[in-house]
Amino acid sequence: MESTDVLVIGGSAAGIVAATTARSFHPDRSVTLVRKEKSVLVPCGIPYVFGTLDGCAQNQVPDAVLANAGVTLRVDEVTSIDRERKVCRTAEGSEIGFDKLVLATGSTPAMPGWLEGGELKNVFLIPKDRQYLEWAGECLADLRSVVVLGGGFIGVEVADELNRAGRDVTLVEALPHVLSLAFDDEFAVRAEELLTARGVKLLTGTSVTRIDGDDAVTGVVLDGGERIAADAVVVAVGYRPNTELAEQAGFETNEMGFIRTDEYMRTDDPDVFAVGDCAEKSSFITRTLKPTMLASTSCAQARIAAMNLYKLSTLRSFGGTIAIFCTAIGDGGFGAAGVTERLAEERGFDTVTATFEGVDRHPGTLPGTHPQVVKLIAVRDSGIVLGGEVFGGASTGELTNLIGFVIQNRMTVSDLLTSQIGTHPLLTAPPTGYPLIKAAEMIARQQRMPVSAAAS
Amino acid sequence: MESTDVLVIGGSAAGIVAATTARSFHPDRSVTLVRKEKSVLVPCGIPYVFGTLDGCAQNQVPDAVLANAGVTLRVDEVTSIDRERKVCRTAEGSEIGFDKLVLATGSTPAMPGWLEGGELKNVFLIPKDRQYLEWAGECLADLRSVVVLGGGFIGVEVADELNRAGRDVTLVEALPHVLSLAFDDEFAVRAEELLTARGVKLLTGTSVTRIDGDDAVTGVVLDGGERIAADAVVVAVGYRPNTELAEQAGFETNEMGFIRTDEYMRTDDPDVFAVGDCAEKSSFITRTLKPTMLASTSCAQARIAAMNLYKLSTLRSFGGTIAIFCTAIGDGGFGAAGVTERLAEERGFDTVTATFEGVDRHPGTLPGTHPQVVKLIAVRDSGIVLGGEVFGGASTGELTNLIGFVIQNRMTVSDLLTSQIGTHPLLTAPPTGYPLIKAAEMIARQQRMPVSAAAS
Repeated sequence: MESTDVLVIGGSAAGIVAATTARSFHPDRSVTLVRKEKSVLVPCGIPYVFGTLDGCAQNQVPDAVLANAGVTLRVDEVTSIDRERKVCRTAEGSEIGFDKLVLATGSTPAMPGWLEGGELKNVFLIPKDRQYLEWAGECLADLRSVVVLGGGFIGVEVADELNRAGRDVTLVEALPHVLSLAFDDEFAVRAEELLTARGVKLLTGTSVTRIDGDDAVTGVVLDGGERIAADAVVVAVGYRPNTELAEQAGFETNEMGFIRTDEYMRTDDPDVFAVGDCAEKSSFITRTLKPTMLASTSCAQARIAAMNLYKLSTLRSFGGTIAIFCTAIGDGGFGAAGVTERLAEERGFDTVTATFEGVDRHPGTLPGTHPQVVKLIAVRDSGIVLGGEVFGGASTGELTNLIGFVIQNRMTVSDLLTSQIGTHPLLTAPPTGYPLIKAAEMIARQQRMPVSAAAS
Repeated sequence: MESTDVLVIGGSAAGIVAATTARSFHPDRSVTLVRKEKSVLVPCGIPYVFGTLDGCAQNQVPDAVLANAGVTLRVDEVTSIDRERKVCRTAEGSEIGFDKLVLATGSTPAMPGWLEGGELKNVFLIPKDRQYLEWAGECLADLRSVVVLGGGFIGVEVADELNRAGRDVTLVEALPHVLSLAFDDEFAVRAEELLTARGVKLLTGTSVTRIDGDDAVTGVVLDGGERIAADAVVVAVGYRPNTELAEQAGFETNEMGFIRTDEYMRTDDPDVFAVGDCAEKSSFITRTLKPTMLASTSCAQARIAAMNLYKLSTLRSFGGTIAIFCTAIGDGGFGAAGVTERLAEERGFDTVTATFEGVDRHPGTLPGTHPQVVKLIAVRDSGIVLGGEVFGGASTGELTNLIGFVIQNRMTVSDLLTSQIGTHPLLTAPPTGYPLIKAAEMIARQQRMPVSAAAS
């Protein structure tokens, strides 16, 4: 029987990072990664295969990443885990013994049970599956009007890309605004304005109850009874963690359906770890469970697991997950870190918020200058920053990461006010109007006011 | 006699931020700003008035910034400070009484004493003076070949802009590389390659000893005796702090010539503060005095002074100055925070460094993808990050600020390895190859090796 020191199941972002980091931190251990996909797509790049990229071939993670790190790759599917014998069985009939096991089995797009007509021709999901996506892309190329269900990141990005590729796109979101898990309304409205200006039709606060058609899609029916004609439907209303394999082997899942782990990503078996979309996350801020599925979060978990496979050797300085998102619509970037004002209030925080509107170059007369808007959400008494939202240009992603570091380091608005930053005309906001610090200043001013005056 | 609660002397970045922050934090106090310039230029934008911007008119700080904050503006020059009576006298013969005084008198470009011929026609400096710069710009428009002396940020940016505007430009730097106070050699070499590819001629490791000409410039003579023909010379070899007014009033300066202050920017008189280019800075990392003159640093000092004018009300969480720089050459961004490897070694730190080379979009097949290179410098034993350098695209400025926050929060490479970041195809590096975390991983690997193996 074949055996390996470290066995990783799953070949997307979390699996790759777990395997390569394990080799990096434990160079004397053998690491094997088993995945069922022949080739792996860059997960966050998937929406872009419908427009900006020339298909899936441009969106591949090269297997050289594994080979260069000395990871053995096996394309096969693990079908069961024998915890007692520490052996995995595969679809091809192999057995692979392991000392340490990392479950990185990912997630699968869900076809919601309440949706009628999901089985019709020209209804598509967005899985991390190259063959499926290539087929879906070919089908969509011949279809004119597309309804996208779900205004989360994937729905928004796919809608924008299909629109860019010349389809006639309607995006339907049940909540009052798109992207509303990540953004407060005023930022979501900006995203909606951009999408609309680019030609995407938006229907928010509305659900699709049924997809119509005999063989193929002919339209969708909304909860108000209205019917929209359509040649295709893309369903992007959520993903569920792939936990069947783990559950069969007796690993516990939490009430949200994710494999239960501790802060070092250990399951209840100290030799078995779970990371990525299939694994438990709890919020850094609210301390409650959360269903975040982001490649960046997955990679952070994978690093933590891989570094601590044999002994807890890395202090986990940041407990819990800070969801840090960003996306782009045209040349407009949207980013969010931590909690929204809405969620903070729901969870009972007494918050103060401020929004500063500036520019991402200075002077703003420079060509290519983009508006840059930063909102900060802080605790009224302590001034600890709980969240931030950004609308801006090409630097939006890293500015959002900066807010993520502010939150992870439990910095206060007072810390921000004495912080040092660097600025340059072509690369940042002006030093006199750096949005993170200006927003902190606006919060500090409110903190000094009596609550009644601040509210007025 | 006129009087004000807070009097700020100087109208550039530090003065503006000191005055407006004072109003924000002490809304019941009157604030007056006295400056001698009729209009104020965006300081970091100055090099760009020679090419990218359509002259100085596009590079103005609007006085509305002061008016909107309720700051009284006086265009006049303070000529003396009577510390005992707490009164300033001005060139126009006024007296202005104050309760608190903030010196933000800035800096002036220096014509070095060792340089012969600095008085010739068509030798220019780069002061923060609109009239002078407009006149220099008009003169330079009619001249063909320009020698720029000094390969610091201003010299590099002015050389690149004049080249862009069609001049024949030679940049002369006495040190072996340009930008070498901020960057280690390998990053400086990238900047040199870009400058050269764009048409700037570079002479490094060479000094100009004399500017030749009868009335106007005809050329420069190098220390090796070689002569270069030139129609104009721009001297950008350094700035000196404007401390005459403070010195006349008996305020102490340190051995680098800056007005001595404590960490809250107070001079030895508790009612008098100094901020910006004229004020003392010491290094956050090496704890020694340093001559940093950056608008971003100035603004941080100004905020600290203004918040603490009446009582120390804001804990200064970060002692000392972290120089955080960035600049752009074409679409290439260069950023640096903290110390270079060279300086860390000189100051006696036992360092480990790592450089990760990646891309600023993912997959790298996306249009507009730019290489992204991050070098981190950390202490071998503790892993505390001392510095970082970045070469990248449009997100370089904020990625450099992220490194600045890592340093200010005294984060270690281990903290980075458990950190969370956000990524997006169009806005950042991939989650599996985020340069800051990959460089930290490379350092962690070296930390675990015996020193002899790491060195081999």
